[in-house]
Amino acid sequence: MQIKICLYGFGNVGREFARVLAAKGPYLKARHRIDAKVFAIVTSTGGVVEPRGFSERELSERSRLAHLSSQEGFREGDPEDLSKWILPWIDGAGPTVIVDATWSDLDTGEPGLSRLLKATAMGCHIVTLSKAPLVADFYGLVEAARRHSVQLKFSGATAAGLPTIDTIRVSLAGAEVQSIEGILNSTTNYILTAMSDEGLSYEDALQRTRAMGLAESDPERDVTGIDTACKVLILANAAMNARKRLSDVRITGITGITRRQIATWAMEGRSVKLVGKAALVGDDVRIEVAPAPLPHRDFFAQVREDAKAVRFTTDLFGELVMAGGAGGLTAAAGSALRDLVNLAELFRHRQGGR
Amino acid sequence: MQIKICLYGFGNVGREFARVLAAKGPYLKARHRIDAKVFAIVTSTGGVVEPRGFSERELSERSRLAHLSSQEGFREGDPEDLSKWILPWIDGAGPTVIVDATWSDLDTGEPGLSRLLKATAMGCHIVTLSKAPLVADFYGLVEAARRHSVQLKFSGATAAGLPTIDTIRVSLAGAEVQSIEGILNSTTNYILTAMSDEGLSYEDALQRTRAMGLAESDPERDVTGIDTACKVLILANAAMNARKRLSDVRITGITGITRRQIATWAMEGRSVKLVGKAALVGDDVRIEVAPAPLPHRDFFAQVREDAKAVRFTTDLFGELVMAGGAGGLTAAAGSALRDLVNLAELFRHRQGGR
Repeated sequence: MQIKICLYGFGNVGREFARVLAAKGPYLKARHRIDAKVFAIVTSTGGVVEPRGFSERELSERSRLAHLSSQEGFREGDPEDLSKWILPWIDGAGPTVIVDATWSDLDTGEPGLSRLLKATAMGCHIVTLSKAPLVADFYGLVEAARRHSVQLKFSGATAAGLPTIDTIRVSLAGAEVQSIEGILNSTTNYILTAMSDEGLSYEDALQRTRAMGLAESDPERDVTGIDTACKVLILANAAMNARKRLSDVRITGITGITRRQIATWAMEGRSVKLVGKAALVGDDVRIEVAPAPLPHRDFFAQVREDAKAVRFTTDLFGELVMAGGAGGLTAAAGSALRDLVNLAELFRHRQGGR
Repeated sequence: MQIKICLYGFGNVGREFARVLAAKGPYLKARHRIDAKVFAIVTSTGGVVEPRGFSERELSERSRLAHLSSQEGFREGDPEDLSKWILPWIDGAGPTVIVDATWSDLDTGEPGLSRLLKATAMGCHIVTLSKAPLVADFYGLVEAARRHSVQLKFSGATAAGLPTIDTIRVSLAGAEVQSIEGILNSTTNYILTAMSDEGLSYEDALQRTRAMGLAESDPERDVTGIDTACKVLILANAAMNARKRLSDVRITGITGITRRQIATWAMEGRSVKLVGKAALVGDDVRIEVAPAPLPHRDFFAQVREDAKAVRFTTDLFGELVMAGGAGGLTAAAGSALRDLVNLAELFRHRQGGR
C-alpha cells in the first residue's frame, strides 16, 4: 500500500521525520507492506513538490541540506494554499496524510487548525506533532475527521516517545479512565533533576537544556507548565471526554522553584517533579499542572533527567505506569511513524485487505 | 454492533469475565456502540446455550451460582463439538468470538489448540487467555486466523493487566523490537517480595499466595518459571518473529532460592526478581527465564508484591518500561474485554462503518 505524505515543517523535527522515514523505508515495506513516500514538503514561505514522490535517497539528502528555501525545486507560496501543495498529486488509491510538525498559536490554533480542517475536507488523514490545533479545537478536529472519514492521529503531540494516547485507546480499551497523571515535559524534568542532583541553579540548568537541544523549541512553554498542560488537556479531552479548554487548566510552572526549596524537600525525602493531572471528580474532569514534591518511594520520584512518565488509573486495571527515556528528536519522529503505521493498518482493514 | 460470544471455561477467570462483561454492558454500548452477548458457556463436561444470548442479569447471576453443570439448561456433551455449542446461533451479521479461559497441555496445546483452529475455520475470532495453544503452535494459529480472515487476540495470555502485546503492536508500531524483558508472573514476584521484605521462607510465602488466590491456577507453572517462559515466548514470537519453541527457552525458577541468598543479595544492595527476557542476538532471538539479583536503582527492583513489569527496547524509542499492580481476576477478565473492544473496532472499520 502506498501512503502519500505532505510534510508540513522542515525544522529539527520535520527533518528528523524525513530522515527516519527514509531510513525505515525497507523495514516498513518488509514488515508492514507499506510504501510511505513524501510528495511535498512545505514551510512558512513555500515548498517543494515531487509528483512521483521523493525517493528515500533524495528525502534523506534533503533532510541534511540547508534551509528548504535554498533547496532545488523550492517555490515560494502561501503554505496554506493546499491546491498548490497537495492537490496536484492526491489520489484515492491509498491514504494521503498530512504530517504536521509546525508551530501554531495556542489560543487560536492557527495557522495549523484551519490547515488541518481544510486537509480533512480534501480527504487527507492527519498526523500531527503540533499540539496547538488540538488544544484550540480538539472536538472540532475530531468531528471534521469523522465527517470526512479520515483518521486523526496525534501521539507526537501527547508525549511522543511515551505512548500515552495509544495506551489509552488500545491497551486500556474497555476500561474507564479515572485519572491520568504524568511527568510529560522533558526539559523541565531535566532542569529539576539537575537542580536536585547537582545543585545547579534554575538558570544554569535551563541554559544546559538549551545547549542540549531538547526537542521542545520554546523553553517558555516548558518552564511555565504550558506544554504539560497542553498534553494533559488533549489526553483528557480524548480519553475522558473532558470537554475542557486550556483556560480551564490550573497551571503552575517551575520558574519559582529555588535551590533552597529543593534542599528542604530533599531533607524531607522528597523530589519535586512537574506533574500534569486530569482526574474524574464526580461527572467533571479537573485538570491541573503543578510542581509536586514527591516522596522517594513514589514511582515518579525515580523518573530522572529527560525521561517522561505517566500513570493511568482505570476501573479494570488499577494503576498502570509507564516511563520512557526517549525524549529527543528521533522519538518525536518515531511517534509520527507510529501513527502512520497504525493509520495504514486501519486503512488496509477498511479496504478489506487482511 | 452485536458481538456474539462463546465462552469456554467457567472457573474463576471465566466467571469473572462474565461478571465484568455484564457489569460493563451499558458502558460498552454508550462508549463503543457494542452489544456484547454471551450465547454459550462451555466447560469440560458440557455447556449451556442461549439462542438469544444471555441478558446481563442472567449472565451476572450465572457467574455467582455453583458449578455450571448444576445450572439451568446445562446439557452434557463433548466440549470440542462446536456444532453443538456454536453452530446453532452463529451468523454473519457481526463478529462471533470464542473467549477461551480454559486449561490446555503445554506440549500439545490440547484440547485448546484444535478447538481454536476449528473455531477459526467456522469464522470465529479468537480471544484467548489460555497460553498453551499459543505456546504449542503460535504460527499455526496466526496462519489459521489469516487464512479465515479472523482476528487472533491474546492480551490475557501475555500478562493481562500489563498490556504487553498491544503496546508492541500499536504503541511501538514502526519500531523494531531489540529486547523484551519482564517480571511477568504475579505469584513468584509476591513470593520473592515476601521472602525479602518479611523474611518469610519460600514455603510460607508460597502458602500465602495460595491463600490469597492469585490468578494462576497451578503454582507449579509459576514457581518453575514456566509461566513466565510461556509469556515471553509468545511475545517474542509475536513481536520479534523469533520462531522459537518452549524447549528453546532456558528456564530457571525460584524454587532453589533460600533466605540466606536473599540476605546476601540484600547486603549487596540487590533484590532478586524472576525475569523473563527475549533479546535479539544477531539474527537470532535468545529467550531465557532466571532469577536476577538486581541493584536497587534498577526499575525492576522496585516492582513489588503481585505487580508485574516489562521493559521494551526498540530502535526508535529507546527503553520503555511499564508496570501495573493489577494482577488478579478482574484484570484477567479486563484483558479479554480489551481484546473484544479492539476486535470490534477493527471489525467495524472493515465493514466500512466509521
